[in-house]
Amino acid sequence: MMLLYWLADRWLDFKIWRLRRQGLTIADDCDFMSLPDFGSEPYLITIGKHVGIADGVVFITHDGGTHVFRHQERYRKVIKYGRIHVMDNCLLGQRVMIMPGVTIGPNSVIAAGSVVTRTIPPNVLASGNPAKPIMSIEQYAEWSLAATPDYDEAEYKRDKRAFLLKMTRKGGRTQPLKEEA
Amino acid sequence: MMLLYWLADRWLDFKIWRLRRQGLTIADDCDFMSLPDFGSEPYLITIGKHVGIADGVVFITHDGGTHVFRHQERYRKVIKYGRIHVMDNCLLGQRVMIMPGVTIGPNSVIAAGSVVTRTIPPNVLASGNPAKPIMSIEQYAEWSLAATPDYDEAEYKRDKRAFLLKMTRKGGRTQPLKEEA
Amino acid sequence: MMLLYWLADRWLDFKIWRLRRQGLTIADDCDFMSLPDFGSEPYLITIGKHVGIADGVVFITHDGGTHVFRHQERYRKVIKYGRIHVMDNCLLGQRVMIMPGVTIGPNSVIAAGSVVTRTIPPNVLASGNPAKPIMSIEQYAEWSLAATPDYDEAEYKRDKRAFLLKMTRKGGRTQPLKEEA
Repeated sequence: MMLLYWLADRWLDFKIWRLRRQGLTIADDCDFMSLPDFGSEPYLITIGKHVGIADGVVFITHDGGTHVFRHQERYRKVIKYGRIHVMDNCLLGQRVMIMPGVTIGPNSVIAAGSVVTRTIPPNVLASGNPAKPIMSIEQYAEWSLAATPDYDEAEYKRDKRAFLLKMTRKGGRTQPLKEEA
Repeated sequence: MMLLYWLADRWLDFKIWRLRRQGLTIADDCDFMSLPDFGSEPYLITIGKHVGIADGVVFITHDGGTHVFRHQERYRKVIKYGRIHVMDNCLLGQRVMIMPGVTIGPNSVIAAGSVVTRTIPPNVLASGNPAKPIMSIEQYAEWSLAATPDYDEAEYKRDKRAFLLKMTRKGGRTQPLKEEA
Repeated sequence: MMLLYWLADRWLDFKIWRLRRQGLTIADDCDFMSLPDFGSEPYLITIGKHVGIADGVVFITHDGGTHVFRHQERYRKVIKYGRIHVMDNCLLGQRVMIMPGVTIGPNSVIAAGSVVTRTIPPNVLASGNPAKPIMSIEQYAEWSLAATPDYDEAEYKRDKRAFLLKMTRKGGRTQPLKEEA
């Protein structure tokens, strides 16, 4: 089992090495479990330092919508590509899609399932389709801190399952939350 | 061909058996074609009786957004996990994503492609990103009944394809619908 | 490598051949890289001429939501299926989902990540969950034309990577855009 994980990691390393040869810019300390879909022009994508990328994330650097009008003489030469820049210390949630021309961050979180069609400012939590900022990272961090129970780190590390089952018994989350409006 | 399906079903049974050993709670009469993604903490997920789960459904029990602020001393101990509870007789449509801390139902339907970020009340049809209730299940059931033509069940079972091609000829659906506002 | 691509294309051809035998109607000049998910009733789907389909597109012809009320005697016979018709010269972006009873186009573009729950008129760009028209194809084409730099086609074809890196250096996209409101 450990060997399988080790082989999967090496395969991921190889894929990233090949994408870099194809022009992808990505910092060494980025964190992902499975390979994102970097699309057909990886050289148009720049990923900064300490970026976390969850499963199923897609980067789209080419707007294929030209398909419906490029056969007209007036639009014959139309091409639509856009660079994508995810700046330092961002987090892209599961199944996030990022459209051509978008810049994100730094220090921004894109919630799972979001479709990012426009540039996202630094230091925000954004979500939705299309993705929009819904709170600042400071609010988000403070909210998360308030929702974290006082706990024993050694206990958490020793038996995460028993710990989380105890911590989340009442209500859904780790603690009743002070919800934002 | 039948053997392949049989093997696929046994593989699914094995996966569910292993997930239950990891702490997943799921009733025996739940219905899914392919294995949902139960994430990294299956022991935080409870699925009630007679729940239908379409392809590509994801359960997220861990908010990874802490990635962007946990390196700050103030937020060093922040953890964000949430239980997910899908109550009896729900239906989760294709590619639905369910976020930490969410409770759904009972008797609620989550439309395909929805991202469920907040708890969904019982007896509603919810859709969108973020998912919101759009009608009651009673309205939905009555609407569906009104849209069902009078038909011969034996004919439907004998040749579903010929039956559906006949039933849906005019307009897109099984019958012109009385649309809700 | 070329052989692998060739084999993948033949496999795709075989899958389409089989889907047509199952009743799918799709024109010969449609364009897709990977096989869409045509669901359980491909005979309810009609795809017109010169339609482009990106990766991960799903067609849903059966509303599974009846799962939650069909066990009640009043709703025992309720069935919900709907034909899907994508008319000529459309483009379906990555991970688009199309619901039962929907007609699209002709000449319409569905943006990546959209969930199409209602019929989309001809000649529009639609996006979102649920998908709504956001501009006409004429506006979209003119906007795209305005954003295309004057370029040498021979240079583009000779070295796409060098060309795109040069063309997109300033700002994210191929050229500063006149954004719609």
